[in-house]
Amino acid sequence: MRIDSSLGLCFIGFGNVGQGLARILVRKERELAERWGFAFRTVAVVTRTRGAALSSDGLSLADLLARVERGEPVGNERISPVEAALLPETDIVLDVTPTNLINGEPGLSLTRAALGSGRSVVSSNKGPVSLALAELKELARARGAHYRFEGAVMSGTPSLNLALESLAGCDVREVQGIVNGTTNYILTRMEEGFEYADALREAQEKGYAEADPAGDVDGWDAAVKAQILAAAVLGFPLPLDAVERTGIGAISRADVEAAAKRGKRIKLLAKAARTTGGVAASVAPAEIPLSHPLASVGGATNALTFTTDTLRDVTIIGPGAGREETGQALLSDMLAIAAAERHGARFSVKAG
Amino acid sequence: MRIDSSLGLCFIGFGNVGQGLARILVRKERELAERWGFAFRTVAVVTRTRGAALSSDGLSLADLLARVERGEPVGNERISPVEAALLPETDIVLDVTPTNLINGEPGLSLTRAALGSGRSVVSSNKGPVSLALAELKELARARGAHYRFEGAVMSGTPSLNLALESLAGCDVREVQGIVNGTTNYILTRMEEGFEYADALREAQEKGYAEADPAGDVDGWDAAVKAQILAAAVLGFPLPLDAVERTGIGAISRADVEAAAKRGKRIKLLAKAARTTGGVAASVAPAEIPLSHPLASVGGATNALTFTTDTLRDVTIIGPGAGREETGQALLSDMLAIAAAERHGARFSVKAG
Repeated sequence: MRIDSSLGLCFIGFGNVGQGLARILVRKERELAERWGFAFRTVAVVTRTRGAALSSDGLSLADLLARVERGEPVGNERISPVEAALLPETDIVLDVTPTNLINGEPGLSLTRAALGSGRSVVSSNKGPVSLALAELKELARARGAHYRFEGAVMSGTPSLNLALESLAGCDVREVQGIVNGTTNYILTRMEEGFEYADALREAQEKGYAEADPAGDVDGWDAAVKAQILAAAVLGFPLPLDAVERTGIGAISRADVEAAAKRGKRIKLLAKAARTTGGVAASVAPAEIPLSHPLASVGGATNALTFTTDTLRDVTIIGPGAGREETGQALLSDMLAIAAAERHGARFSVKAG
Repeated sequence: MRIDSSLGLCFIGFGNVGQGLARILVRKERELAERWGFAFRTVAVVTRTRGAALSSDGLSLADLLARVERGEPVGNERISPVEAALLPETDIVLDVTPTNLINGEPGLSLTRAALGSGRSVVSSNKGPVSLALAELKELARARGAHYRFEGAVMSGTPSLNLALESLAGCDVREVQGIVNGTTNYILTRMEEGFEYADALREAQEKGYAEADPAGDVDGWDAAVKAQILAAAVLGFPLPLDAVERTGIGAISRADVEAAAKRGKRIKLLAKAARTTGGVAASVAPAEIPLSHPLASVGGATNALTFTTDTLRDVTIIGPGAGREETGQALLSDMLAIAAAERHGARFSVKAG
């Protein structure tokens, strides 16, 4: 990796998250260089339906954002995601392709290719993490590359990096929390008097829930996040179908009101916990006492409580989705890579 | 700094926090080496009233803890904190001396000496940070050393490292929260029906509050933490007497009950916020709506909300004090230093 000049970024995907990151990079380019020592060039932007743009000197992200705004393609180049990842100018591949939980594509192939060539990958794509984290981590280690995916859980709110870096040395035994904003929004609206069907319809109208809401309301999205927490934080990969899963479809307004009368709130909790020699992960509605920090987490906000040996419970609360919120996750991962490489540079100079 | 073998640790101070860290190191020595690649030798333990122990081969922390338990001195050596910090075997100085807000001593002199010689310092001591952060940061930068002090705010609950590393790239505009566990405990007990004087007496009996409780109840401890957050997170050092400060002494049980009737809780809030061209910091009791995450923070727990540009509010909740809880802060800082130096080692090899 180039360490004495700007880092070459290759966007694979330029939808909500890619554009969110691009906006932050445009707005903060100078601050990133001055305060964080982070200089970058955008060497490729590859999309599935809007063409591709390439430039070894660096593309203007502001121009690309304006083109997308006008409904134009980002460019007329023809290049596959894997080819773009392997361009000589690419240092960091940004995998902001949509999550595919069946085969991880196109993210999995491009991540394998990039890491295998010693290039680093920063991702918000849950698919490759869910399907192949152990393999990808080992590939990165063997090639001296970085694979980071803070954006896969709680968008830019530090969750994975909190557990693995800020809590370094702690033994995290259990993680549980609210990791799906759509279901939390629906449950919050039900507390305010909505029936389930009406709250769901409103979430769909606001763009929080898909036309087919099963991924959220049946707990699949939360289950993948529980699986990622089990693998990345607790160190035990397990297949997605090993995550016990109950959604919120069977919860009525009467259930929510009855819980409130007991001084409790119903939340969809994702959980991953150490067991003897392994890990158990689950997603299910649970009644939380109002005095617990997770009970105060309403609407589209997310929260995770890490239960540790030396600190007992540490809870983080913040946004769980959003364009720039997830873009921030990718940015913090890129800055961590740049910082690690800078230490390398500093010591190379010393050694030389 | 030695990067190919164990790191030499020099404890200055061996009270609650030093012993808490020592216990963790004894319990986790093997795990730290295997999982975190962190190998250490304890080359010196220097105390004010219990003597000093030195060994270039490494002291047994288990033995030292047993001696302290039996009321014996840690050793019979005579060496000053600065001399110990500058021993050739010392790589990381652990400043776990008591906070002195008047002149920072003995922490300030030993921190200056260590950083000035290129040795790193990990600290839970608020004094040197409060009095001289800008100078010490610059000294560390100039000598390629590390100065880290996560333990100065919220013990091992990530606060400074959360803001500066996990939230890298975010513009933190304001930080506010509950950073003094003693006053929070007293306010929580007042909600449960205690008068102020009775709640204070109980906190003193439990060892949370000092015989002279002014440092806590008059807001001094929280003010120093607001000052540290302003300097370390917002980048604007300001003198301690520039922090506006109101304690909890004037709050009655009737005030707490009246707030409860309005659906609110009284909390002692520390705050640091950007202003045009600077920063304002304050400590004062405030009424928090029950729906806010800070309202659910009871007893000796601490919490901070970081208001940022890309993520809006991110809140962290966890323990604010304790032997091992603060020891964990020092450990996470040491692991961050070791990780940075390892990157150095990896790239040195590449360069050579």
